[in-house]
Amino acid sequence: MISVGIVGGTGYTGVELLRILLRHPQVTVRMLTSRTEAGRAVADMFPSLRGHTDLVFSDLTVDALKTCDVVFFATPHGVAMKYAEDLVAHGVKIVDLAADFRLQNLADFETWYGMKHTCPELLKQSVYGLPELNRAHISKANVVGNPGCYPTTVQLGLAPLLKEQGLIDLNSIIIDAKSGVSGAGRKADLGLSFTESTDSFKAYAVAGHRHHPEIVEGLNRIASTQTEFKNLVFVPHLVPMIRGMLSTIYIDLTEQGTETDLQSLYETFYQHEYFVDVMPHKSVPETRSVRGSNMLRIALYQPQPKKLVVVVVQDNLVKGAAGQAVQNMNLMCGLSEQLGLTGIALMP
Amino acid sequence: MISVGIVGGTGYTGVELLRILLRHPQVTVRMLTSRTEAGRAVADMFPSLRGHTDLVFSDLTVDALKTCDVVFFATPHGVAMKYAEDLVAHGVKIVDLAADFRLQNLADFETWYGMKHTCPELLKQSVYGLPELNRAHISKANVVGNPGCYPTTVQLGLAPLLKEQGLIDLNSIIIDAKSGVSGAGRKADLGLSFTESTDSFKAYAVAGHRHHPEIVEGLNRIASTQTEFKNLVFVPHLVPMIRGMLSTIYIDLTEQGTETDLQSLYETFYQHEYFVDVMPHKSVPETRSVRGSNMLRIALYQPQPKKLVVVVVQDNLVKGAAGQAVQNMNLMCGLSEQLGLTGIALMP
Amino acid sequence: MISVGIVGGTGYTGVELLRILLRHPQVTVRMLTSRTEAGRAVADMFPSLRGHTDLVFSDLTVDALKTCDVVFFATPHGVAMKYAEDLVAHGVKIVDLAADFRLQNLADFETWYGMKHTCPELLKQSVYGLPELNRAHISKANVVGNPGCYPTTVQLGLAPLLKEQGLIDLNSIIIDAKSGVSGAGRKADLGLSFTESTDSFKAYAVAGHRHHPEIVEGLNRIASTQTEFKNLVFVPHLVPMIRGMLSTIYIDLTEQGTETDLQSLYETFYQHEYFVDVMPHKSVPETRSVRGSNMLRIALYQPQPKKLVVVVVQDNLVKGAAGQAVQNMNLMCGLSEQLGLTGIALMP
Amino acid sequence: MISVGIVGGTGYTGVELLRILLRHPQVTVRMLTSRTEAGRAVADMFPSLRGHTDLVFSDLTVDALKTCDVVFFATPHGVAMKYAEDLVAHGVKIVDLAADFRLQNLADFETWYGMKHTCPELLKQSVYGLPELNRAHISKANVVGNPGCYPTTVQLGLAPLLKEQGLIDLNSIIIDAKSGVSGAGRKADLGLSFTESTDSFKAYAVAGHRHHPEIVEGLNRIASTQTEFKNLVFVPHLVPMIRGMLSTIYIDLTEQGTETDLQSLYETFYQHEYFVDVMPHKSVPETRSVRGSNMLRIALYQPQPKKLVVVVVQDNLVKGAAGQAVQNMNLMCGLSEQLGLTGIALMP
Repeated sequence: MISVGIVGGTGYTGVELLRILLRHPQVTVRMLTSRTEAGRAVADMFPSLRGHTDLVFSDLTVDALKTCDVVFFATPHGVAMKYAEDLVAHGVKIVDLAADFRLQNLADFETWYGMKHTCPELLKQSVYGLPELNRAHISKANVVGNPGCYPTTVQLGLAPLLKEQGLIDLNSIIIDAKSGVSGAGRKADLGLSFTESTDSFKAYAVAGHRHHPEIVEGLNRIASTQTEFKNLVFVPHLVPMIRGMLSTIYIDLTEQGTETDLQSLYETFYQHEYFVDVMPHKSVPETRSVRGSNMLRIALYQPQPKKLVVVVVQDNLVKGAAGQAVQNMNLMCGLSEQLGLTGIALMP
Repeated sequence: MISVGIVGGTGYTGVELLRILLRHPQVTVRMLTSRTEAGRAVADMFPSLRGHTDLVFSDLTVDALKTCDVVFFATPHGVAMKYAEDLVAHGVKIVDLAADFRLQNLADFETWYGMKHTCPELLKQSVYGLPELNRAHISKANVVGNPGCYPTTVQLGLAPLLKEQGLIDLNSIIIDAKSGVSGAGRKADLGLSFTESTDSFKAYAVAGHRHHPEIVEGLNRIASTQTEFKNLVFVPHLVPMIRGMLSTIYIDLTEQGTETDLQSLYETFYQHEYFVDVMPHKSVPETRSVRGSNMLRIALYQPQPKKLVVVVVQDNLVKGAAGQAVQNMNLMCGLSEQLGLTGIALMP
Repeated sequence: MISVGIVGGTGYTGVELLRILLRHPQVTVRMLTSRTEAGRAVADMFPSLRGHTDLVFSDLTVDALKTCDVVFFATPHGVAMKYAEDLVAHGVKIVDLAADFRLQNLADFETWYGMKHTCPELLKQSVYGLPELNRAHISKANVVGNPGCYPTTVQLGLAPLLKEQGLIDLNSIIIDAKSGVSGAGRKADLGLSFTESTDSFKAYAVAGHRHHPEIVEGLNRIASTQTEFKNLVFVPHLVPMIRGMLSTIYIDLTEQGTETDLQSLYETFYQHEYFVDVMPHKSVPETRSVRGSNMLRIALYQPQPKKLVVVVVQDNLVKGAAGQAVQNMNLMCGLSEQLGLTGIALMP
Repeated sequence: MISVGIVGGTGYTGVELLRILLRHPQVTVRMLTSRTEAGRAVADMFPSLRGHTDLVFSDLTVDALKTCDVVFFATPHGVAMKYAEDLVAHGVKIVDLAADFRLQNLADFETWYGMKHTCPELLKQSVYGLPELNRAHISKANVVGNPGCYPTTVQLGLAPLLKEQGLIDLNSIIIDAKSGVSGAGRKADLGLSFTESTDSFKAYAVAGHRHHPEIVEGLNRIASTQTEFKNLVFVPHLVPMIRGMLSTIYIDLTEQGTETDLQSLYETFYQHEYFVDVMPHKSVPETRSVRGSNMLRIALYQPQPKKLVVVVVQDNLVKGAAGQAVQNMNLMCGLSEQLGLTGIALMP
């Protein structure tokens, strides 16, 4: 059994990790830390866990974390990098669900997250945790930066087009993304209140979203380029739903792209991927088809001969966060990648 | 034209007063105060008002308020009673949407609101603002305590039964009430966040709700009794909807009650009331049928010979708060009671 | 492995059975019938199942069903009773999720469901499938009538009070119940459309609900009485949420009842029940705490010395339908009762 | 007073016309037709209208309609064109809320609506009813084709850019549009049911939407071009909300466009328009800011030097349908354009 610690267990990614890991056949959750809730029974805070766990929130103690095989950081940005070196030195594997190990570009990290990176050497050795594109490296990694939710949809949505050169105009990409409200985290915030956000729709972060540089870095990694995607446009929107994320991606095809059977390209690219579902031509993926599951579904349309539209859906808290983190843990620990993650979406 | 001031304009009752009063043909809204937003354009905070008003939030200055004909307090409990005597002395009429002038029983006020009443003499002269039951007194009042939302549904839902003696067992009343989330006010509160409260349902305030003593006092007033309704049970629930309140009231009928045509009793009782709609027998009132309007609808069922069920719906922010406050203002100022309040519910 | 057939797989209980049974370690779903969809891939109709099953809807053929160990009927009322005798004669165990085997009183069945019962002899041998109250009989049954969703909450919510005589006034019970919209089934119906039912709340079936006689029969069974609960009042309401059911039950306590520690009574009564959670005193159960899980939670309040309020929540599609059906199957087949049913609620 | 008839009064645009017109100071609604509901009180079908009208649905009789000054067709496509010539010949003015008089291109009409146009001559004389762009012609028109909801947002969102030549690449336009569910009309449809569409998000009509040709024709009209916008991409999405529409429009700017102060361009273009609100730079329009009102709000972002994003919100049933229809009626009848349309959005 793998013993797991979760740092920051009171947010949505923390409780979602618990939901998954408490049913994982090879995992024991040993500790769950919270600055504010130490000493409180976890099931008292989250009644959905009543009957399923006797865990009690504990203070964050590095010594205690060192006894774990794997530690998940479900914390604000900047926490994991404080403890990572010490833990890794003691043989603990780390999956950070925040941004500390997502961006290799330190300047971007500082600009978008407003802090200096405190362990740039470890960052260099860390691995970007998108298993479908990066499986081999993750298997050997000690530190994995779990991707942001939007970047997961965009990278998996575009990878087949980027791995083969010459199919698209790399500077034409427009991402119109939509997220359920849980993506904003578990917090008291007027703008996220029921009364303010239900029965309404809006764009947000129009001045720039932190996932923008992660998307650009990720696409360059996939395309084996370095300075492309500079004109990428990314506009996120807020949908009055709890979970779910849908990205509509608009791409200009090249001549070569228009002559390619893109549906086949995608189906072949992902044919062995359990968690990526390329839907039949003209399917309409709904976010609810992945609610609570680690699946990500893709559909393609070609509304104009030279225009491709890629629609990607996932559950932002599962494939977009906690589920993918467990997928990474499975790989890092030599387990079957799907273990604990085969739950079926809750529909309706 | 009547010049109006609104104290506390940043909550939902404040902005709802504005929505109504900016279209009221006999009213000029002269000022809107806010401690935190003074100097800010109201339409900047509430974009729904863009194009409809140039008002700017101002500090609360008693001297400025004294220039108004009517002042609405859309403030937390305990604010109106600080200013009321001074304003009344200067001829200003007051409608308090908080609880300062709702309860004549001072002990109840102190127990449930955790503060001493600072102007008990004025309280005695103030009038409880339920126009359908108290019209004559409101017309002559200087200070009106605008009823709570739940108490409005219960009192109007039971009045026809109480005005005629002997129809029901006064100690049998059970109120199972349901409210939309806006009833909790405009605030940053984790429990009221979209993610925490949508697609779910719960009871709340099971240890006792502040509207309980107001309901009991109100029913005694209607029934011309003093110490009845001691066993009243009132359990409020939270519905994942923005506006709307539905109270399901269960009553044991007496022998006399079972022999009475209660549907006719209600229809006759409310036949001249514009804002109270007694629906035909076996109708099923929906909260959306009053969304945004000042209407309150009532339906009766008799599932057992001796059991009456009264269902009452209203918009908690209109008939349950701001609309009723304007109805009171109309009466206090000698205007037609319906002025500015004839808007039709937004459906769908 | 137990081979299972599901008759009527296109409704919400059908697809929910699939969600559970496809992950059940001792079950193979051999067939899924649908009159209208025969030949269509199940995952084509329910994309949430893509990647999880290759099942294809088939026509209902009795001979094929006879090859199954267990057949679930997730059909309209009146279907199971057509096939039950034949199947049972061939050793097939049956769980009917409709009402054919719920009511022992044939007159009630005919009155409320508008049809004659076609196998009254088999009905007499069938067992009412509420495992917590009826486990021993279910284990030996060939035919189980799976309880209605509302009756499940009411019977489990009142059982501890009824098993001990003299605690409550049996004729005082009022049930104010609230259900999510999925309870109405999967169908094209204007009144159930998003635009008609979101952001609103209403009572329904005020002239009488089919679960009323089932509740009365069930409570008499529990209390070992025959003709009590005649004055029971049951008013269901529709909540704008997908899944979830909350029943608020009002009861008059007897003198003896007021002197009993009811919280302890409930905790003791259910101490060995995995799926029934008696929450600590003054807890506020939310429906989302059981979303997608087979748990049922109970909380008690005593707002007046002689008035008890019992609040019960469950997921209407799981403990209120498909989950309880699988719980029954487990018992009928000699498996651990919890097998395949330990999934944790999806929260948020 | 203008006497009005509404043909097809049982859909959402019909009841929304009623909500507006029953409060219009210069209008008497004389009749409301329905094939299926003739003889039924309108307020019986729509309880939100109880107390506000005694109208009864009537059969569609041309002779009766001829007695009206204005007739609105809130009917399926193809109905208005059957009656229009006869009514116009008798001096009746017509506003069609369906598509019969939206497209001047007959081939497009036949292709997208699957029927032949039966009065092409009258179509030529009819006027496209987008008042902000077409006011003079509407004022003199006998027949107005009320624009589709999506085309209204796109045309008003792009007009300032198109009236001045050379600012944008006309072939770069991508419209990612999102609509509330009421846009699909009032009907029994499984896909539109609450349980199927709440807490989820999806694209739809990906194979092509009927508003596509209307948008293209409209943009050519505005730009005084004929064959541009051929590569336009338009992908609509369904938001789990009742009312509201938001279009996110992506445009490539020309060199000249990048050198223009586009915010000023928009503010100047719409400075005298009551119903079009150009919000300050970086504003984030929410659909709820126009809920129930005839306002349309626009905001601009420039995420990349050569990329402009225009976000437009409106209430699809008001400015996107019934409100705009009344705005057209006001113009056609020589009334103030704003009459009856100054209601403030319902917020929250």
